[in-house]
Amino acid sequence: MSGNDQVSAAVLVIGDEILSGRTKDKNIGYIADYLMQIGVDLREVRIVPDVEAEIVEAVNALRKRYTYVFTTGGIGPTHDDITADSIAKAFGVGISEHPRAIELLLTRIKPEDLNEARRRMARIPHGAELVENRVSTAPGFMIGNVVVMAGVPSIMQAMLDNVTSRLKTGVKMLMETVQADSTPEGAYAADLGKIAEKYPDASIGSYPSFASGKFQNQIVVRSKNPDTLEKALADVRALIERLTAERAAAKR
Amino acid sequence: MSGNDQVSAAVLVIGDEILSGRTKDKNIGYIADYLMQIGVDLREVRIVPDVEAEIVEAVNALRKRYTYVFTTGGIGPTHDDITADSIAKAFGVGISEHPRAIELLLTRIKPEDLNEARRRMARIPHGAELVENRVSTAPGFMIGNVVVMAGVPSIMQAMLDNVTSRLKTGVKMLMETVQADSTPEGAYAADLGKIAEKYPDASIGSYPSFASGKFQNQIVVRSKNPDTLEKALADVRALIERLTAERAAAKR
Repeated sequence: MSGNDQVSAAVLVIGDEILSGRTKDKNIGYIADYLMQIGVDLREVRIVPDVEAEIVEAVNALRKRYTYVFTTGGIGPTHDDITADSIAKAFGVGISEHPRAIELLLTRIKPEDLNEARRRMARIPHGAELVENRVSTAPGFMIGNVVVMAGVPSIMQAMLDNVTSRLKTGVKMLMETVQADSTPEGAYAADLGKIAEKYPDASIGSYPSFASGKFQNQIVVRSKNPDTLEKALADVRALIERLTAERAAAKR
Repeated sequence: MSGNDQVSAAVLVIGDEILSGRTKDKNIGYIADYLMQIGVDLREVRIVPDVEAEIVEAVNALRKRYTYVFTTGGIGPTHDDITADSIAKAFGVGISEHPRAIELLLTRIKPEDLNEARRRMARIPHGAELVENRVSTAPGFMIGNVVVMAGVPSIMQAMLDNVTSRLKTGVKMLMETVQADSTPEGAYAADLGKIAEKYPDASIGSYPSFASGKFQNQIVVRSKNPDTLEKALADVRALIERLTAERAAAKR
């Protein structure tokens, strides 16, 4: 596997409103899908409150461990928006108004309305590059391997589109799903485990869902190697077909 | 503040399917709401893959830090269900079949169908107490301050109901929302910051949402002290009313 195959990432969601249950996060699932599409492996997610020490600790733990860290939330103009300052602290750099960020704000805000609170949105840690967005114009930024984005989904999505061309991306993970339907997990678990052992460069997961008193199971086969994917998939399909036939025969 | 006021928690979501974007998590928001209702402060969430070392590390980091840790996912019968073994490892205890767990499985599974894979669902770390559920009958468990639950939402929810009576709960957080509507965050940010400073035992957040090219802002005031909540809320309402009147006057 070349180095390029292994581009990893973590997401750090910053916000009391998610932890209190007031706001239901919509960004994690979106970013997970997005990273999968561009061949970046999302390996960890953390949600922390609007507390500087906790943001600093999480950013520093994650940025050492993964190729990229994507943060969402806390870059607006109010007192609880402390992400930019916390990131500067995590990197041990200064922070001040970025001229281009002021310019961007002025495309939407009248000069006489650009008060101190709004100017806070132009405070960017030294050494960071802006991540622009057309939706709100207030920019996010990228510093080292950390991408700092807004929490409002439409703005976060525009920032993710903006930054993607700057990221190194890996080999895309391929994924296929086998419907196991009502074949119980307990009936195929042992054989599925053997298939998983047979293909170490595939990842095979079994995912039950439960509705109207019945399980509906799906088996997902993932691999970056198309050949492995095809072979493992064929084995899984054969297993489920065999069990389905056996169950049908038993009912006769 | 008495010790009882400070009951904290973390949620640990275990599962490759969430990180790959295949499954959109529905448990974090539910648990966040639930804990708020019973006076437990959710302070942190982590999502990790089905990798033993990462589960062990996260469980051990979180259980030292918070009153409770709630995990979801990875307790089924397939090879990727490694949560119970990982938790045993994190606590440094053995793991084996729990007679009551076998009994519970047999209420749903015929004795001749109780194969090795299904028996895995009865493997419980030594020293743990079962957390039963009527939906699937396969139990979760509680060991020390860690509550281990299923990933399927309906089953997780039944387990949460089952375990709640065993938890110590705190003083419920009170919360009120002020609609700031289209009053821009940048217009109230400075004054809101002063209100937040005036009431250190309240937490005040400003949450923009963005639709059809316009911001719709909400200000949320939270406190465990009803008196503080009322006073801070009155200040926030007066601020927004003043700004709304000023903006209306400016338009005339």
